[in-house]
Amino acid sequence: MKAQIITIGDEILIGQTVNTNSAFIGERLTEIQLDVAKSVTIGDTAAIILHEFAEAFKNSSIVIVTGGLGPTHDDVTRKCIADFFETELVFDEKVLADVHEIFKKKGREVTKTNEDQALVPKIAEVIRNKRGTAPGTWIEKDGKIFISLPGVPYEMKLMMDEFVIPKLKERYKTIEGRILTKNLLTTGIPESYLYEKLGDLDELLNGAKLAFLPNQFGVKMRITVIGESEEDAKDTMVEIEQKIRSLIGRYIYGYGEILIEEVTGRLLKERGLKIAVAESCTGGLISSRFTDISGSSEYFDQGMVTYNNVAKVESLKVNEDSLEKFGAVSIEIARQMAEGVKAVSGSDIGLAVTGIMGPTGATEDKPVGLVYIGICDDKVCTAKEFMFGDDRLLNKDRTAQAAIDMVRRHLLGIPYDE
Amino acid sequence: MKAQIITIGDEILIGQTVNTNSAFIGERLTEIQLDVAKSVTIGDTAAIILHEFAEAFKNSSIVIVTGGLGPTHDDVTRKCIADFFETELVFDEKVLADVHEIFKKKGREVTKTNEDQALVPKIAEVIRNKRGTAPGTWIEKDGKIFISLPGVPYEMKLMMDEFVIPKLKERYKTIEGRILTKNLLTTGIPESYLYEKLGDLDELLNGAKLAFLPNQFGVKMRITVIGESEEDAKDTMVEIEQKIRSLIGRYIYGYGEILIEEVTGRLLKERGLKIAVAESCTGGLISSRFTDISGSSEYFDQGMVTYNNVAKVESLKVNEDSLEKFGAVSIEIARQMAEGVKAVSGSDIGLAVTGIMGPTGATEDKPVGLVYIGICDDKVCTAKEFMFGDDRLLNKDRTAQAAIDMVRRHLLGIPYDE
Repeated sequence: MKAQIITIGDEILIGQTVNTNSAFIGERLTEIQLDVAKSVTIGDTAAIILHEFAEAFKNSSIVIVTGGLGPTHDDVTRKCIADFFETELVFDEKVLADVHEIFKKKGREVTKTNEDQALVPKIAEVIRNKRGTAPGTWIEKDGKIFISLPGVPYEMKLMMDEFVIPKLKERYKTIEGRILTKNLLTTGIPESYLYEKLGDLDELLNGAKLAFLPNQFGVKMRITVIGESEEDAKDTMVEIEQKIRSLIGRYIYGYGEILIEEVTGRLLKERGLKIAVAESCTGGLISSRFTDISGSSEYFDQGMVTYNNVAKVESLKVNEDSLEKFGAVSIEIARQMAEGVKAVSGSDIGLAVTGIMGPTGATEDKPVGLVYIGICDDKVCTAKEFMFGDDRLLNKDRTAQAAIDMVRRHLLGIPYDE
Repeated sequence: MKAQIITIGDEILIGQTVNTNSAFIGERLTEIQLDVAKSVTIGDTAAIILHEFAEAFKNSSIVIVTGGLGPTHDDVTRKCIADFFETELVFDEKVLADVHEIFKKKGREVTKTNEDQALVPKIAEVIRNKRGTAPGTWIEKDGKIFISLPGVPYEMKLMMDEFVIPKLKERYKTIEGRILTKNLLTTGIPESYLYEKLGDLDELLNGAKLAFLPNQFGVKMRITVIGESEEDAKDTMVEIEQKIRSLIGRYIYGYGEILIEEVTGRLLKERGLKIAVAESCTGGLISSRFTDISGSSEYFDQGMVTYNNVAKVESLKVNEDSLEKFGAVSIEIARQMAEGVKAVSGSDIGLAVTGIMGPTGATEDKPVGLVYIGICDDKVCTAKEFMFGDDRLLNKDRTAQAAIDMVRRHLLGIPYDE
């Protein structure tokens, strides 16, 4: 089953907007084993759009179009679809009601232009848009499927996940069986080490698929299972996940798209613990990430960005002799900073980082990328050395991720073993 | 002059990587008035690549291809180009020397596979790659131009900016005259207000073009000038920029791609001033952004993330009665926090933010999006109210941007007037 994506919009072509829609749709289609053969971006010109529709529908079984469904004159996709399928545009009562509802909520009047959003090709099945006014459409012809979705990512994504993907899975179930995917999120271990620890992948997966998707925050492992039935697929997924967890469970901090600051925040909240953070090299990034999560005030107590030694001594009560003896970037100072921020704030846990993010600041025995992370509670006070890379901003991301993971591991009693 | 972009790589099609290359190239071509008509993404399959090359070269005057130039078996672009232009691949001595030089620096041996990176189509002009091993190529045939570049953004961008764009400008100068573009970066004023303050655009621009590109950090204004000669274009650009600056200069913090934290950091450094930051609602983001800049330790003194009232009182010496009377989110507390962090750190400038980022935390008279930013030095201690939006993370970005801009304005003596 070959699929093609068509993105419509001048703003994408001229680079004002990056085409994240195509990536999202490509990822989702790949997850259900549909083969994305081509992705085309064109502007809002009817003749060009019609040409691409014809090319795509000739060469692919599934065509997904996004964009050009807005209410203004330069949005021509709707009209092009009707022309291409030689059908007319008719008002859809449900969509019209949706449009009126949306404007009523905002206390604004509905204009003729807004009402025209409810025009859909007569032969299409409507995909309702819960987050905006432009509906999507699903058309089947000659055994092929033609889908149109709005270009606003926030609207398109929900329609993909709630309507398009389930319906495509349903549509191809006789051929492909039931398909399930799950993302396991790992951190603190490189892709190659994960791979080694998993041993014989063929034996582990028994026909299922596993993709490794690394970035500076860790490696996402995407499992794809095709079962004989929905039950069978679910059972197989559970079995594979259990096997993987038994081998590398300590590195998995969650699944789906969850962030480690949310996972760690939940653990702190469940245990009624408060955390305080002292940052040198990350300059506030760890505190900022903890507080990205709504409700974080329940467990995030205080942050201190002690970028210089005076602040380390005055605000965190770091020992001046130790600073002199070991240097600010050292396991001892990371430990003392964690201890200090815990004491000063009166929190249950103190977390601290100190390191060299680059490009400057390296010394003969302390290279760019060297980081120490300290953590203290009432019982334990410890620190650990990490070695990251050359890029300042990536190093900040990696350090923040490792520090938050250190809290997670601490709370779950997961030791470091590498 | 119609241009087409072709991106080659399975990882783009399946959504593992977002296609930022196409956006970058589209933006650069648009800046020099070349019309990007289409952007196509395909996988690493020779037959499909050859088909797209033929289509693109038939329909466009300029084709830019990225990707598929790596050293492994699945990188087939180079071979496809040679086949498409019915030429052979030959070793380029300069590129071969570049490859050897790169490996020598890393202390690694050059393999046959690495050396093959120096193979280029015989009829091509080579575009040397200063950041990697895969060279680009420039081929002209039948009055059309076919350009191939590596897919690594960091390598591709430099080759576009240093070679491709200047050469395209040179190539089309007889037709198009000299083209210059400049991005003026503004913040603290919405797009529509900027537009109004600029008055009659036709009169202002006199044939030049101006695009408004807004995001949560401000509005980028892109000026494009086409002159009779390079001198003429330069003169016109200076004239337009001066006119714009005379109307809205106070909102312009820089040009190009510079960040406001870098601009503000330079001002602090020039004046030998140190800053300390107290953050409530931004949770460390302002400190993190200041310290994203290498060398920021010269002017960034200390940060405090006082997420709760106790910390505001204990660490920042905020008055408890004021907290009770005005609430933590108030102009008075923003001022006191700025004063406090200045005093506690002994810095020259204290900056503070307090606000409600959402989705929770709003009260009847304090809605989500309400923010107060305070700033104090030895002479002035003041605060200002801002109203942002509904989205927590965008609100954090907007607040941090406004706070850093407040320091910039403070140092330059630019008042608020809206």
